[in-house]
Amino acid sequence: MTEKLFSLLDSYFDDMVSLRRHLHQHPELSFEEKETPALIEAFYKDLGVEVKTGVGGNGVTAVIKGAHPGKTVALRADFDALPIQDEKDVPYKSLIADKMHACGHDGHTAALLHLAKALHLLRDELQGTYVMIHQHAEEYAPGGAISMIKDGCLDGVDVVFGTHLWVTADLGKVEYRTGPIMAAADRFEIKIQGAGGHGAQPHKTKDAVVAGAQLVTSLQQIASRRVNPVESAVVSVGSFVAENAFNVIADSAKLIGTARTFEPAVRDLVEKEIGRITEGTAIATDCTYDYNYFRGYPAVVNHETETDYIVEIANSIPGVTAEESEMQMGGEDFAYYLEHRPGTFFFTGAKPEGVDVPYPHHHPKFDFNEKAMLIAAKTLGKAAIEYHKQQ
Amino acid sequence: MTEKLFSLLDSYFDDMVSLRRHLHQHPELSFEEKETPALIEAFYKDLGVEVKTGVGGNGVTAVIKGAHPGKTVALRADFDALPIQDEKDVPYKSLIADKMHACGHDGHTAALLHLAKALHLLRDELQGTYVMIHQHAEEYAPGGAISMIKDGCLDGVDVVFGTHLWVTADLGKVEYRTGPIMAAADRFEIKIQGAGGHGAQPHKTKDAVVAGAQLVTSLQQIASRRVNPVESAVVSVGSFVAENAFNVIADSAKLIGTARTFEPAVRDLVEKEIGRITEGTAIATDCTYDYNYFRGYPAVVNHETETDYIVEIANSIPGVTAEESEMQMGGEDFAYYLEHRPGTFFFTGAKPEGVDVPYPHHHPKFDFNEKAMLIAAKTLGKAAIEYHKQQ
Amino acid sequence: MTEKLFSLLDSYFDDMVSLRRHLHQHPELSFEEKETPALIEAFYKDLGVEVKTGVGGNGVTAVIKGAHPGKTVALRADFDALPIQDEKDVPYKSLIADKMHACGHDGHTAALLHLAKALHLLRDELQGTYVMIHQHAEEYAPGGAISMIKDGCLDGVDVVFGTHLWVTADLGKVEYRTGPIMAAADRFEIKIQGAGGHGAQPHKTKDAVVAGAQLVTSLQQIASRRVNPVESAVVSVGSFVAENAFNVIADSAKLIGTARTFEPAVRDLVEKEIGRITEGTAIATDCTYDYNYFRGYPAVVNHETETDYIVEIANSIPGVTAEESEMQMGGEDFAYYLEHRPGTFFFTGAKPEGVDVPYPHHHPKFDFNEKAMLIAAKTLGKAAIEYHKQQ
Amino acid sequence: MTEKLFSLLDSYFDDMVSLRRHLHQHPELSFEEKETPALIEAFYKDLGVEVKTGVGGNGVTAVIKGAHPGKTVALRADFDALPIQDEKDVPYKSLIADKMHACGHDGHTAALLHLAKALHLLRDELQGTYVMIHQHAEEYAPGGAISMIKDGCLDGVDVVFGTHLWVTADLGKVEYRTGPIMAAADRFEIKIQGAGGHGAQPHKTKDAVVAGAQLVTSLQQIASRRVNPVESAVVSVGSFVAENAFNVIADSAKLIGTARTFEPAVRDLVEKEIGRITEGTAIATDCTYDYNYFRGYPAVVNHETETDYIVEIANSIPGVTAEESEMQMGGEDFAYYLEHRPGTFFFTGAKPEGVDVPYPHHHPKFDFNEKAMLIAAKTLGKAAIEYHKQQ
Repeated sequence: MTEKLFSLLDSYFDDMVSLRRHLHQHPELSFEEKETPALIEAFYKDLGVEVKTGVGGNGVTAVIKGAHPGKTVALRADFDALPIQDEKDVPYKSLIADKMHACGHDGHTAALLHLAKALHLLRDELQGTYVMIHQHAEEYAPGGAISMIKDGCLDGVDVVFGTHLWVTADLGKVEYRTGPIMAAADRFEIKIQGAGGHGAQPHKTKDAVVAGAQLVTSLQQIASRRVNPVESAVVSVGSFVAENAFNVIADSAKLIGTARTFEPAVRDLVEKEIGRITEGTAIATDCTYDYNYFRGYPAVVNHETETDYIVEIANSIPGVTAEESEMQMGGEDFAYYLEHRPGTFFFTGAKPEGVDVPYPHHHPKFDFNEKAMLIAAKTLGKAAIEYHKQQ
Repeated sequence: MTEKLFSLLDSYFDDMVSLRRHLHQHPELSFEEKETPALIEAFYKDLGVEVKTGVGGNGVTAVIKGAHPGKTVALRADFDALPIQDEKDVPYKSLIADKMHACGHDGHTAALLHLAKALHLLRDELQGTYVMIHQHAEEYAPGGAISMIKDGCLDGVDVVFGTHLWVTADLGKVEYRTGPIMAAADRFEIKIQGAGGHGAQPHKTKDAVVAGAQLVTSLQQIASRRVNPVESAVVSVGSFVAENAFNVIADSAKLIGTARTFEPAVRDLVEKEIGRITEGTAIATDCTYDYNYFRGYPAVVNHETETDYIVEIANSIPGVTAEESEMQMGGEDFAYYLEHRPGTFFFTGAKPEGVDVPYPHHHPKFDFNEKAMLIAAKTLGKAAIEYHKQQ
Repeated sequence: MTEKLFSLLDSYFDDMVSLRRHLHQHPELSFEEKETPALIEAFYKDLGVEVKTGVGGNGVTAVIKGAHPGKTVALRADFDALPIQDEKDVPYKSLIADKMHACGHDGHTAALLHLAKALHLLRDELQGTYVMIHQHAEEYAPGGAISMIKDGCLDGVDVVFGTHLWVTADLGKVEYRTGPIMAAADRFEIKIQGAGGHGAQPHKTKDAVVAGAQLVTSLQQIASRRVNPVESAVVSVGSFVAENAFNVIADSAKLIGTARTFEPAVRDLVEKEIGRITEGTAIATDCTYDYNYFRGYPAVVNHETETDYIVEIANSIPGVTAEESEMQMGGEDFAYYLEHRPGTFFFTGAKPEGVDVPYPHHHPKFDFNEKAMLIAAKTLGKAAIEYHKQQ
Repeated sequence: MTEKLFSLLDSYFDDMVSLRRHLHQHPELSFEEKETPALIEAFYKDLGVEVKTGVGGNGVTAVIKGAHPGKTVALRADFDALPIQDEKDVPYKSLIADKMHACGHDGHTAALLHLAKALHLLRDELQGTYVMIHQHAEEYAPGGAISMIKDGCLDGVDVVFGTHLWVTADLGKVEYRTGPIMAAADRFEIKIQGAGGHGAQPHKTKDAVVAGAQLVTSLQQIASRRVNPVESAVVSVGSFVAENAFNVIADSAKLIGTARTFEPAVRDLVEKEIGRITEGTAIATDCTYDYNYFRGYPAVVNHETETDYIVEIANSIPGVTAEESEMQMGGEDFAYYLEHRPGTFFFTGAKPEGVDVPYPHHHPKFDFNEKAMLIAAKTLGKAAIEYHKQQ
């Protein structure tokens, strides 16, 4: 069975590449996807597979029923792109200014569609049901997952698998991790309100630049003193803006940043400590403040049994080796699927050939090794069709 | 003689107000002055006074020769305006959007022109020569004074006097000070160059916001530790800009600020210490930097003899009292005249009637008590015509 | 075999307690141990076991040879105490002022001695050789392990096991971890040399308190910005001393602290970054500095095979359950044994009965549940005598 | 009259030196003075001058009445020494370990006593009354002045003069200043209470060293941002003590420092701002604190008329020139006399001959030019006997 699946997938590889490159040339931003879901819908209709669009927004789901009873396995691929200008010099470069598939979602989609095609062909021999979740809007909170789930995409599903093409891992590697694998990714905004004035008369002002600077400095204590050193937490102020004439003292300063954590208790702690430090700094500098903490995706927390299962599957595929991943501080709304169903999310090594240090995800020159799509399809495919053996 | 002068000035008061209001409605920015010098030129030509335009740029000088030999006394008034939207609700509000006489230079000019008119009328009885320096571009470094001096406006001059209408002083006060009265006003720019990256991966970056914040914090030590506490120094970072997405770590941060000092040695020290702290901070944070310190006007340092003389003159005018001024951290390019000639610069109280806390200079609602123009004209005028008595 | 061993150990429990309490009353500090090694030597001599004293200093080793050929298994217990005043109110309270077994090494020793007694009795039925390593000076760097190893205590040894009684774990728990389980524990000292002077004249000084304060603040960036957030690093300044009259500015400040890490690369990074930040701070504050970083014990890094083995052993003992430990930021010189031989170090739950939050290790009121000694002896004993089954 | 006075003083010079050296060898600390007031009493009794001891503690006053009516002039000299080990290599080095006249009070006393002797001899020709105030305990707050005043030493006094021998001024200079000449010298103590713990577990602690460091850093903002830059304020943390083992996180930190100001409003502001910054820092770091601000002597504020008078007197003495002094950040309890009576306090130049940079006051090798005693005596003496001419 698996041999049949793999040889079908091998035969689809060129089509997979073509489709991925088409998508790459026509990127669509999160929550603005139109052509991409239409293309997915058409693909399934051509096959004669039951497909549903407008799931939780721009999401698409398709269901392939095996002839034999069994578990229901969901496989997820996201399909949105990023507001980045493509700076690669390749024939399949983005045709849309300032939009780019700079994270590999085009590859996810091409792989899952062709896997679906193969499963559909083999449906008479398969046990169980296969739900293809084509998710919109992974790149931008609140993300598409949460609304697709609300809209029922996990109804009747027993287990969910997903993968991300990963350019920092070598081709042939499948990187897994039990428990937290990707971080909760939150945003915070702090406005320090002082009292501006002339640069020559600090005593008549409350200098918001000095207050903001002290705040940034003190926020470093969250990672260094407040969080258990064997846990992880990042607090980064990405933006500090107090734009004024040189001889003016700033009336206010605006700080915007991100916080990353894995454990819910650490996440709560970080939110609280930013507030505590902001309050104390404002008191010390006689300023006032406005602090808002916006929760993004929670941490992606893989389930142990399903992760062990994927490791076993991956290691059984010729040319593929599973290895444990570090925890990644990046976020992923796959987290929500795992809050509702057992499952696991893994990385499929996709480092471009002949490259030592690849351009990272979200870089204007990002690209991946397209062979990784085949490995992703095989790993998800084998995991799906053999899942009925699991108890 | 003085009585004649004063009664002429009294009789000109309404004209002075009219002229000031005309100027107030037609403000021109530093180095862009056209109509104002043309108006000044026309005023002198109407009187039949020798006038010279294009002095060191847009400056104007006029010379009135007394019939009797004596010293040559220069009197200076500046005439440029500011890039501020006039928000006052008065009939003589600025007619030009985003430009405003928000510092009182319109009053300086109206007062000096009418004083010139009076001196011209009395010239047969006067001793010595009177040089009227109508200076452009006081508000914007490098200022007009330096180029007018290069262009000869002080040639043959024995002494120079100037005043600023001053709304924080009551009408009738003349505020003097021997030695430094206004500060050296410099500008500095620091660019911190780190290495940007993803907000979740601080270890792969050199966070320019953290480096810049530490720098701002450490710069406070210049005033608190490095400068003699009985001297004065201000270092203000007015602008801190590192504008990025929330989940990015800043590649660079730009700090712009002002330094104010009175003593040349303190000025040198401040310039050096900003550099030292920037260098150390860059080393500690593994960043690089670019530091530039731009010297603006030096401190206005009044000469003792001439200041004592103005005190005496002021106290001799009915309704006027001299009192010692605090040192002011603001800058003035009158400083340059005093580097070349003996003289003094004083403040003429111009607080609006019935107002407790007036809108400060450079405020969109700034205005002054127009009667102060008469006091300014009388003080400068008496100081000029009696100067021949000085040894 | 194991049943015989366990029933012997059960029968020794009262003796184990007595011996532990004797040791508890007679604590000896690291590198000053005399009576304790003498007691250990006498114990073995009474049994007729080959014993060697003065191993690498005050260490003691004893060798028990099974009648049948097999692997050589080393078991280690440390026996030094701490410079702490015992504040417990128990009959077996320390008799020596300011010295106390506040970490449980008395229990380690009592357990290992009685395990040795049992092994000796059963020697005719045992396979392989058992090396009892009674180590001095675990509490104080450079520790006793390194010199005992140099002195040959691991010669011929195939595997080494050790445990620590652990009051934060419940009785019956054996806490294991593959890879790093305890941290590299280093010490650093920084002297900031400024230039002192009168508190009223900061400009004539280089204020070492201000420089030291800035340094402490900046050191927080190591954990927050320089180390990969999924790795662990702690940099704590425990001591900041600049003691002067109130009206004096400090000439120098002395900072002493500890750095904890698990990965050698992180350890190197931390040492380097402390230096970088110190250098930059000194430059910014015009001070000089002296920075020394003293490496203590490396991280305790457990071997995977031996850890899996201990988990299996532990779970096979009635009333005992293995569970994964968090990484501990504390240090242990058991690290050195594992640099030379395969093995593992684990924690034996020893929380006192009826206590919710026990006094932590090194606390003046520290005590442990003595029943844990029996579990430690059984786990080490079973691991030792069944090790011949391992390949 | 003045000639007679001066020639008497000249003739006493050797005695003045002998007496000063005797006092120098027998220093007594503030509030512990016994032999010194006894010596002073004996000196006056020998002369037959009315003398009173035990004034406000260890103070001594003597009254010399001129034969003719006139004003009552008080002259003050202090006589306490410092807890410093004399490290000079001179025959008159202190005979008492760890006690030393390191500020010149021995010289003040020798000068005033011999001036009194001369005034007593000339009493038949003098107008008015002369009160010699020999003050104990100037070096240690609350000082002797306040209690001597309470005890009546200024009763009936019209004016008070005092001087300090001053080694940074050349011999022959009399340094005067109207208004504030010496600072209010206050002390503050801040205890930061965190929660200690193991250096490896910062998250279980509230690190008092980190909190204290942040506090020191933020206190720099008082001088740089909160106080008018043309005013003076110094806030120096002289002592920062958190002494712990290297692997401990500090439970508490103790900061002790001094604040110096001239203006009462600035003094109040500084006290308040230290509190504000401490409170905010404690909140930001989740610590508690204890802040105490102890007011020392207020600023010495010279009266204008009496200062002008001293300038005139000084300039009239051959070989003496008055020059304006900088404000001094040091403190003096002469401040209290000037709160009750008109008067002035001036510095008498006493730089040792042939020395470029003298050892400063309070230095273990401090010494002064003894000829300055004669200048001090002449200046005070002439000021006293001619004061009747003042209206």
